[in-house]
Amino acid sequence: MIWYNDLNDGIILSTRIRLARNLDKTPFPAILKKDEKEKITETLSDSIMKSNSTLSKDFKLYNLNEMSPVEKTAMAEEHLISLEMIKSNDGAVLVNTDKTMSIMLMEEDHIRLQIIKGGYCLDEAFDLADKVDNVMEESLTYAFDEKFGYLTACPTNVGTGLRASVMMHLPALVMTGNITRVLQSFSGVGIAVRGLYGEGTDAEGALYQISNSVTLGLSETEIIEKLKTVVERISEMEKQAREYLMKNRADDLKDKLMRSYGILKYAVKITSKEAKNKLSEVMLAQNMGIIESDGKMTPLELIVRTAPSVISGEESLTPDERDKKRAEFIKENL
Amino acid sequence: MIWYNDLNDGIILSTRIRLARNLDKTPFPAILKKDEKEKITETLSDSIMKSNSTLSKDFKLYNLNEMSPVEKTAMAEEHLISLEMIKSNDGAVLVNTDKTMSIMLMEEDHIRLQIIKGGYCLDEAFDLADKVDNVMEESLTYAFDEKFGYLTACPTNVGTGLRASVMMHLPALVMTGNITRVLQSFSGVGIAVRGLYGEGTDAEGALYQISNSVTLGLSETEIIEKLKTVVERISEMEKQAREYLMKNRADDLKDKLMRSYGILKYAVKITSKEAKNKLSEVMLAQNMGIIESDGKMTPLELIVRTAPSVISGEESLTPDERDKKRAEFIKENL
Repeated sequence: MIWYNDLNDGIILSTRIRLARNLDKTPFPAILKKDEKEKITETLSDSIMKSNSTLSKDFKLYNLNEMSPVEKTAMAEEHLISLEMIKSNDGAVLVNTDKTMSIMLMEEDHIRLQIIKGGYCLDEAFDLADKVDNVMEESLTYAFDEKFGYLTACPTNVGTGLRASVMMHLPALVMTGNITRVLQSFSGVGIAVRGLYGEGTDAEGALYQISNSVTLGLSETEIIEKLKTVVERISEMEKQAREYLMKNRADDLKDKLMRSYGILKYAVKITSKEAKNKLSEVMLAQNMGIIESDGKMTPLELIVRTAPSVISGEESLTPDERDKKRAEFIKENL
Repeated sequence: MIWYNDLNDGIILSTRIRLARNLDKTPFPAILKKDEKEKITETLSDSIMKSNSTLSKDFKLYNLNEMSPVEKTAMAEEHLISLEMIKSNDGAVLVNTDKTMSIMLMEEDHIRLQIIKGGYCLDEAFDLADKVDNVMEESLTYAFDEKFGYLTACPTNVGTGLRASVMMHLPALVMTGNITRVLQSFSGVGIAVRGLYGEGTDAEGALYQISNSVTLGLSETEIIEKLKTVVERISEMEKQAREYLMKNRADDLKDKLMRSYGILKYAVKITSKEAKNKLSEVMLAQNMGIIESDGKMTPLELIVRTAPSVISGEESLTPDERDKKRAEFIKENL
């Protein structure tokens, strides 16, 4: 299921597996010329689209030079391509029908294969990534070193080339002021914490991506097991923080969350940042049984669908028009 | 109709006429002894209750020494007695069935006769006050001086003893920042501006009482005509301010008002001050056709009914419990 629609327990929201791969004896994309990139992109996409696997029918190819900036940004906001790829006109991305798989070609590495799914399913997602990886490897030869493992453009990805991550919703840890302390306590153990849109982005809406920061010296299984341990401990702490709030500050909490719901239901215009934070609070309220989850869309889907470029679509809207369209969209679908 | 239920055009909300009267050859209440006050209170109330007029059946007598502080405060918040009378255990108040008439006995003057009605009806209200005054005068002799007119405890009331006032809702003048200038422009012409609960109270919720400040040297008709002129000019300015906002800042205005509505519909707790200001905004929204007026109670009735003492009733509630009860009450009735 698409990652923003199956929210599991409301704390561990979604799972992502990313594999970085490069072709043997081929320079990394950063130093390739335009025509070289085009040629390699074709070879890489053929490894899926011309394979005998059923995957060939599931995927669709998008060439970046045929996409508008808005389309690209929208794809980034759905987590199908990276923020860096928005600015690029080289390469392509393969996306499957239900948007759980995307393969970026000519990003930092030749191949960035991603599985992204709702809920908490690291093993299942890794198995799927592995399967797609095997299909591609049938017709490609990867840059692989017996000692170091998969070779990648950035040294931090050398090794398994694996980044496993989960998106967590930690509003109670934010409200109790414990979030920084909790997240810092895991910074020494090879775990990285990022905001909703990855590196360098804020954790707006109390949404955090927790991932492994090292891919070298550990097996894929070890990386995933270690991440699980950390994620489950953070999840436990968030649960405790929610219980604490309900026990000691129930009225304040309910008041805060219900007001956010009321504002989302009636506002005539709303910025992306405010929408994100208020939708995050409604998500918490639904999870804690304070508000029924009877809307057409989950609050997380609304966060994704009301991001600036997604809400604009192909229209060229002023920020003010966007804020009105966003408010309208949330009202209808919350 | 009760003053907070017939809101006329939403700008001039209600009308009040007050007559101050004292008995001839009798000291003012401030220097009377307790037993003297009791005796005079009886004489005064008899002038209504034992009269041949149909008024005798319409009025009910409340002795202040038999009322709890909460009951008295609630009556003050409904504008049936003055704030000063809450602290008093002497005297009484006569209130008619639909609460449009109240007669305070042993307040600053022996008699403070008040007509308070929804809508803009100064002439009608004055005629009614005059009629009740005549009934009382059938059995009482007033302190009256051929030169000065009616004699009262405070010199500012000497003359007609009349205070005519209207309650106005001026949110657009507040929002455009013009309110101070507008109200100051009338300060030199014998017009006084007060908040919702009279002298010395804030104009919370953009509610203003506009009244004559002088009762001497003018006839009753002149006082009322002068007040009408001022009130109608202020009303015109508020209308222009509303048109200006709708023309130039419609989205901002609608957003502000709709958010207030959303918060009132979903808040779990709310202070009196916040409720007053948000209900004032909903009142404006209903008036401008931005929100339908389909609630069980008008926003102004809700302001009155959720004032601290009214919402508490006879329960002894903590401020926090009161804020919850208020939020609940507004949610149900807005």
